[in-house]
Amino acid sequence: MALIVQKYGGTSVGDLERIANVARKVAATKDRGDDVVVVVSAMAGETDRLIGLAKKVSPLPNEREMDVLLSTGEQVTIALLAMTLESMGYKARSYCGWQIPLVTDPAYGAARITAIKKEAILEDVKNGHIIVVAGFQGVDDKGSITTLGRGGSDTSAVAVAAALNADLCEIFTDVDGVYTTDPNITSKACKIRKIAYEEMLEMASAGAKVLYIRAVEFAMRYRVPVVVRSSFSDNDGTLVTEESSDMEKESVRAVTCNTKEAKITISGVEDKPGIASRIFSSLADANIVVDMIIQNASADGKTDISFTLPESDLQKGLEICGKFKEQLEATQISGASDIAKVSIIGLGMRSHSGVAAKMFTALSKEGINIEMISTSEIKISCVINQKYAELAVRTLHDVFELEKSC
Amino acid sequence: MALIVQKYGGTSVGDLERIANVARKVAATKDRGDDVVVVVSAMAGETDRLIGLAKKVSPLPNEREMDVLLSTGEQVTIALLAMTLESMGYKARSYCGWQIPLVTDPAYGAARITAIKKEAILEDVKNGHIIVVAGFQGVDDKGSITTLGRGGSDTSAVAVAAALNADLCEIFTDVDGVYTTDPNITSKACKIRKIAYEEMLEMASAGAKVLYIRAVEFAMRYRVPVVVRSSFSDNDGTLVTEESSDMEKESVRAVTCNTKEAKITISGVEDKPGIASRIFSSLADANIVVDMIIQNASADGKTDISFTLPESDLQKGLEICGKFKEQLEATQISGASDIAKVSIIGLGMRSHSGVAAKMFTALSKEGINIEMISTSEIKISCVINQKYAELAVRTLHDVFELEKSC
Repeated sequence: MALIVQKYGGTSVGDLERIANVARKVAATKDRGDDVVVVVSAMAGETDRLIGLAKKVSPLPNEREMDVLLSTGEQVTIALLAMTLESMGYKARSYCGWQIPLVTDPAYGAARITAIKKEAILEDVKNGHIIVVAGFQGVDDKGSITTLGRGGSDTSAVAVAAALNADLCEIFTDVDGVYTTDPNITSKACKIRKIAYEEMLEMASAGAKVLYIRAVEFAMRYRVPVVVRSSFSDNDGTLVTEESSDMEKESVRAVTCNTKEAKITISGVEDKPGIASRIFSSLADANIVVDMIIQNASADGKTDISFTLPESDLQKGLEICGKFKEQLEATQISGASDIAKVSIIGLGMRSHSGVAAKMFTALSKEGINIEMISTSEIKISCVINQKYAELAVRTLHDVFELEKSC
Repeated sequence: MALIVQKYGGTSVGDLERIANVARKVAATKDRGDDVVVVVSAMAGETDRLIGLAKKVSPLPNEREMDVLLSTGEQVTIALLAMTLESMGYKARSYCGWQIPLVTDPAYGAARITAIKKEAILEDVKNGHIIVVAGFQGVDDKGSITTLGRGGSDTSAVAVAAALNADLCEIFTDVDGVYTTDPNITSKACKIRKIAYEEMLEMASAGAKVLYIRAVEFAMRYRVPVVVRSSFSDNDGTLVTEESSDMEKESVRAVTCNTKEAKITISGVEDKPGIASRIFSSLADANIVVDMIIQNASADGKTDISFTLPESDLQKGLEICGKFKEQLEATQISGASDIAKVSIIGLGMRSHSGVAAKMFTALSKEGINIEMISTSEIKISCVINQKYAELAVRTLHDVFELEKSC
């Protein structure tokens, strides 16, 4: 008998029929003899509806009240799902974030989990209840409602699984697992059976949307085995787990592509200490998350700095850099949003040599110019012109023979 | 500088425009130098929408989860109103029932308030915040969400006013006060300037819908001055307050009419102890609230018992009585829903004689037969055929000259 945490996203609980479908899946798990804690999102569209209401009140609604408003979305779902389970003859009990409590810092809209009390839930589990938890939400230590931001329900599920020391955390979603690349780009994309936390983390940060970074971080830190699978089929999903010896057999596990970033280049900057620090501090103060940063070596005491940032922050980023133009004696500040970041990821890179060279050669053979490069131990990312994005993904998927790895 | 609790019902916060209107009223009170605690209902229609969802899940949804679901209605309103006030430059802070906390017993759907903590709210008030409280909801001592049932937001408002020792509780609604009778029945109906708690309580229990019984009970017990007034105008409302010497000048303050009751008559019952007890215990067990009970004196050892109950419970009531028919040796059990209960209410009845006689004579002159009579110290109710309801109200309003009392 295992303790299993299952998470169902907004599409999976999008209407009463789908909630009934989720209830049947949960009940089947319970019938097999396992204890189940279900974490659910707001019904698809509900969060957007609530945001719409708030935006009509004010373009910048009060953040504390925004979280009070948004948290009703999940609260509706937990009540409906628990009711459905009860009407099927199961004992079920819903929990809002504050009822667990799932305690966070007070950063409304993007709160971070600081503690999860397990006693109440475990007591109810012991009494045979199916537990239905509202994802995405928590409570700060002053008793105000908080929300966790994008992907919050995934994070809730993994964090609850960690706190309860669950045997497995199943993330049910509208895709049936993690793929070697986006199947919309190449039909050769195939489902990965097993992937290491580190690889999943790099994939998430490189733009794969199947699991959010913070959820993977939690899973990795607390060693929670996570399965990503479809809520609309019984297919096996992808197991995200600890690295094992067989995982390094392939040099590359997946190719990802992110077209939602933009690039800013500051040219002709005086090459002296403190320049980069000033710019990036200002960007950080404006809550702009900078991804890749490249500073070219300079010969004449001048240098170029390029960096990528979310496309939606390009305008704000350009304004901030503009303020520094004179001070930096920069010759030019330019922005571009027609870029794509293509990445290859794999634990095997650590033991296979020549992976980077193989990547650059393959892109070059297709006439694709590489504008920026950044690497980690298990990832190589190249920024290219966005019009070549799909071509680059297909090329790399082929050259690293990912279709053979599944 | 006073501390004022204002309550706005579902119609008053029915859309964002109306919420903005409420925010302006609240802000005007704050600008006058008073501290304000606002209690709000769910936006009109929202509670029905949520009930509709639940009823699709199950005809008898789990009661605990029903309260989790319904309480989101007020939570949306408090967030939107607090946001609106913040966007107008006021400091505002929303409170769900559990955040106060407003503690209740665990009777989901009809919970009773057992305690209200005032410290957190008063601290925020001291810091200049406008407090926005979700009406209708509370939390039991195990941390489950509860709702207070019909008229719950009125009750929340008066109870919060009592707990905070507020100077005044203003109930903003879609009528502009308490009238001598329903203005839809006679154009002579006029607004009462001042009414005693006891009179208001009798009016509420006799079918006047302007304030719910439990809210009046709370106001009376804790001596909270309550004003009922319109949220769509600045007209003076009706002050519900302690009895004062001038109130007994008129014998009758108001005429009410309730057409939502039905009558059950059990004929030819053996007249021996314990009969009534058995029937009414069974009805109480089925949560049927019986109003008037009349047992006729018997000559031949047989007696007739008649009682009124909510029209919606007539079928259930007849079934329960039916089970006793044999045991009671009753000759007949019959039900009727085409009845109306017409009542006259006034503190002055205590000092004016002949009020009852005047009422019966007036009805009889119009050919209206009285089927049942019940009286309290300050109320006389008659059950009549429903088709005479309006005629009876107009007749009594005229004969007691209520249009002159305003």
